[in-house]
Amino acid sequence: MAQKRQLITLLTDFGTADHYVGAMKGAAYSVYPEIEFVDISHEVPNHDIFGAAYVLRGAYSTFPRFTLHVVVVDPGVGSTRRPILVMTDSYNFIGPDNGVSSFIYQLETVNRLVHLHVPYYFRQPVSSTFHGRDIFAPIAAWVAKGNDPRKMGDEISDYVRLDAPVPKQVAPTMLKGAVMHVDRFGNLVTNFTAAHLPEERMARARLRVNGKEIHQVVSHYAEVQGQAPFAYIGSQGFVEIAVAKASAARALEARRGMEVDLAFPVVE
Amino acid sequence: MAQKRQLITLLTDFGTADHYVGAMKGAAYSVYPEIEFVDISHEVPNHDIFGAAYVLRGAYSTFPRFTLHVVVVDPGVGSTRRPILVMTDSYNFIGPDNGVSSFIYQLETVNRLVHLHVPYYFRQPVSSTFHGRDIFAPIAAWVAKGNDPRKMGDEISDYVRLDAPVPKQVAPTMLKGAVMHVDRFGNLVTNFTAAHLPEERMARARLRVNGKEIHQVVSHYAEVQGQAPFAYIGSQGFVEIAVAKASAARALEARRGMEVDLAFPVVE
Amino acid sequence: MAQKRQLITLLTDFGTADHYVGAMKGAAYSVYPEIEFVDISHEVPNHDIFGAAYVLRGAYSTFPRFTLHVVVVDPGVGSTRRPILVMTDSYNFIGPDNGVSSFIYQLETVNRLVHLHVPYYFRQPVSSTFHGRDIFAPIAAWVAKGNDPRKMGDEISDYVRLDAPVPKQVAPTMLKGAVMHVDRFGNLVTNFTAAHLPEERMARARLRVNGKEIHQVVSHYAEVQGQAPFAYIGSQGFVEIAVAKASAARALEARRGMEVDLAFPVVE
Repeated sequence: MAQKRQLITLLTDFGTADHYVGAMKGAAYSVYPEIEFVDISHEVPNHDIFGAAYVLRGAYSTFPRFTLHVVVVDPGVGSTRRPILVMTDSYNFIGPDNGVSSFIYQLETVNRLVHLHVPYYFRQPVSSTFHGRDIFAPIAAWVAKGNDPRKMGDEISDYVRLDAPVPKQVAPTMLKGAVMHVDRFGNLVTNFTAAHLPEERMARARLRVNGKEIHQVVSHYAEVQGQAPFAYIGSQGFVEIAVAKASAARALEARRGMEVDLAFPVVE
Repeated sequence: MAQKRQLITLLTDFGTADHYVGAMKGAAYSVYPEIEFVDISHEVPNHDIFGAAYVLRGAYSTFPRFTLHVVVVDPGVGSTRRPILVMTDSYNFIGPDNGVSSFIYQLETVNRLVHLHVPYYFRQPVSSTFHGRDIFAPIAAWVAKGNDPRKMGDEISDYVRLDAPVPKQVAPTMLKGAVMHVDRFGNLVTNFTAAHLPEERMARARLRVNGKEIHQVVSHYAEVQGQAPFAYIGSQGFVEIAVAKASAARALEARRGMEVDLAFPVVE
Repeated sequence: MAQKRQLITLLTDFGTADHYVGAMKGAAYSVYPEIEFVDISHEVPNHDIFGAAYVLRGAYSTFPRFTLHVVVVDPGVGSTRRPILVMTDSYNFIGPDNGVSSFIYQLETVNRLVHLHVPYYFRQPVSSTFHGRDIFAPIAAWVAKGNDPRKMGDEISDYVRLDAPVPKQVAPTMLKGAVMHVDRFGNLVTNFTAAHLPEERMARARLRVNGKEIHQVVSHYAEVQGQAPFAYIGSQGFVEIAVAKASAARALEARRGMEVDLAFPVVE
């Protein structure tokens, strides 16, 4: 069998109209031309650290073990926020220490954190505004090439972690959660999980978002009829709200951050 | 020479802002890391089966023989629509049996159709909403890896096919067709082909869309002068309507689905 | 070590909704399946030659030597503009001879220019509207495959070059430049370089765009406080105007082409 391929995924807020993503890849190839890049997304909204953390959560674990995931959503570029490498049992992550890996800290076992600061592994001169090209991409290439990351900086034990929004019990039969993400189809991804909505309680569950009630909670997507919004356990394990072949975000005038109530009214 | 590369093209309506495309690729690489992905488009309008069929038509035949084309535009995900493999003399296609391969059935010789249903080849657990990640991508990787698709399901002989819109003769000197596609440049791609517009009839041909007449029909794009809309045989063999360095869709206020008249007025 | 990879970058105004980019790649793979494509951008505004030249400038030099850069922003497709190969000391470029390589002529040493016209290396039949698929992509693949480009056409010595906009001295202490590019973050990239704004003059430098003054000129991005627009030397060596975590384009209602004054008022 041929040499194992060095997969590196990229997740940024750089968009695809500028030269930024191309320049990152070029800088990495210049260190190690054998990289296989996979674009996760470059359409994270500008400076949206939580948005990046959410997309990373959805993609990273589908990849083969030891894939290197690089996230550059970096509103603090040029400040003292640290470039870090997060090594877990299954994957490696490179990005700014600003919370983009928050879900990783929650879901994976972190074995080593390295503050990447050794200029030898940077592209020179290092600009103050484009660390994607000058720091993150070349470092990723050096790691992919097999170099020992411990030479690239110092081990650290602290890191920045976003407070992931967690549903709260607000009454004996009611939980309050939030819309974490609105996807391209207008599906609302909440922060409720299957644990909050066990199958035996689905029939009497009700959700409410933006003053509008969702009456249908289904275990099989295909059960749904008509254009009423419905809820189900989505492909990432979160409760989602959708409208068949249409946008729930539009139908409910809902957007990210809005509160979602999950209630289990007692039937008399 | 090195081992032949396993090209897999992807065509979806997933957009590039969410994790969906990345998760599909990850799921496929986890089965077979040697795949070479080529993104055809992820910007098919949501649930637009005909739009996917049209883009697939334009791209597939430029690829080397036996490229595997994967199309996931799947408004019926979670229902009983079947995941299928379409094997032709020249290419293989994987997608839902909902008509995305309609042009393929028309243009290629189908040798085998397989209803893909053997769970061994799926990513587990299979979600009810994301078959791109859980069914189509892993199956594509198993096929690319060289596994026999007949083990992945049963041969079938029926399939869903969209009625491709075909021009109609409505008078001795007039045909009625339609705008099949509006591209990024605002060019209108009609369903008239070179057969409807032979070169010797171009000089007296007239087209009409949205009440506006197109007087210039040219055989060479470069002949065109000025900002009047003109028609020509486009790069896919369809008659297209364009405006030089501007948008015909805007100039003619035209959009997909609109009727197009093609007339050959008799010159006295 | 394995065979060196054949990197080909692509920069077009084709967007990613149509089949155009996929068809280009397919046509190239059909000539030479071992290519490694890197998308620089397909979001150059329609027909925007300068925009393409600018993005190419930002990306090309990060790549390994002898990367082949292919640019297809080609409003003159079908006319007599020539497809050309530009060979420099470090890189090769393929595209229409319409000025997309203007910055390359300025920054690199050109060793050879070839007018690519030998039909043997084209995809047949050559359409009049899609030379990306029929000429540029296959030619690029033939070059990547190691074929001698001199067989593909004739050497030429003339070429089309855009007049790059250059700042002008309009008073003893004032220069007049322009906004060359507005990036995704709303940063304004001017045509002033570090040479126009040496570090020792930064403290008293003032910029003005659209009637609004920029008072802060910083050498380190991280010095900036508050929401006032500021200027700095950007990652490409040009003076840029930004607003911390917001859009300078929006704050200053500025857009590409607008004049920018750079003044060094004499302090009494």
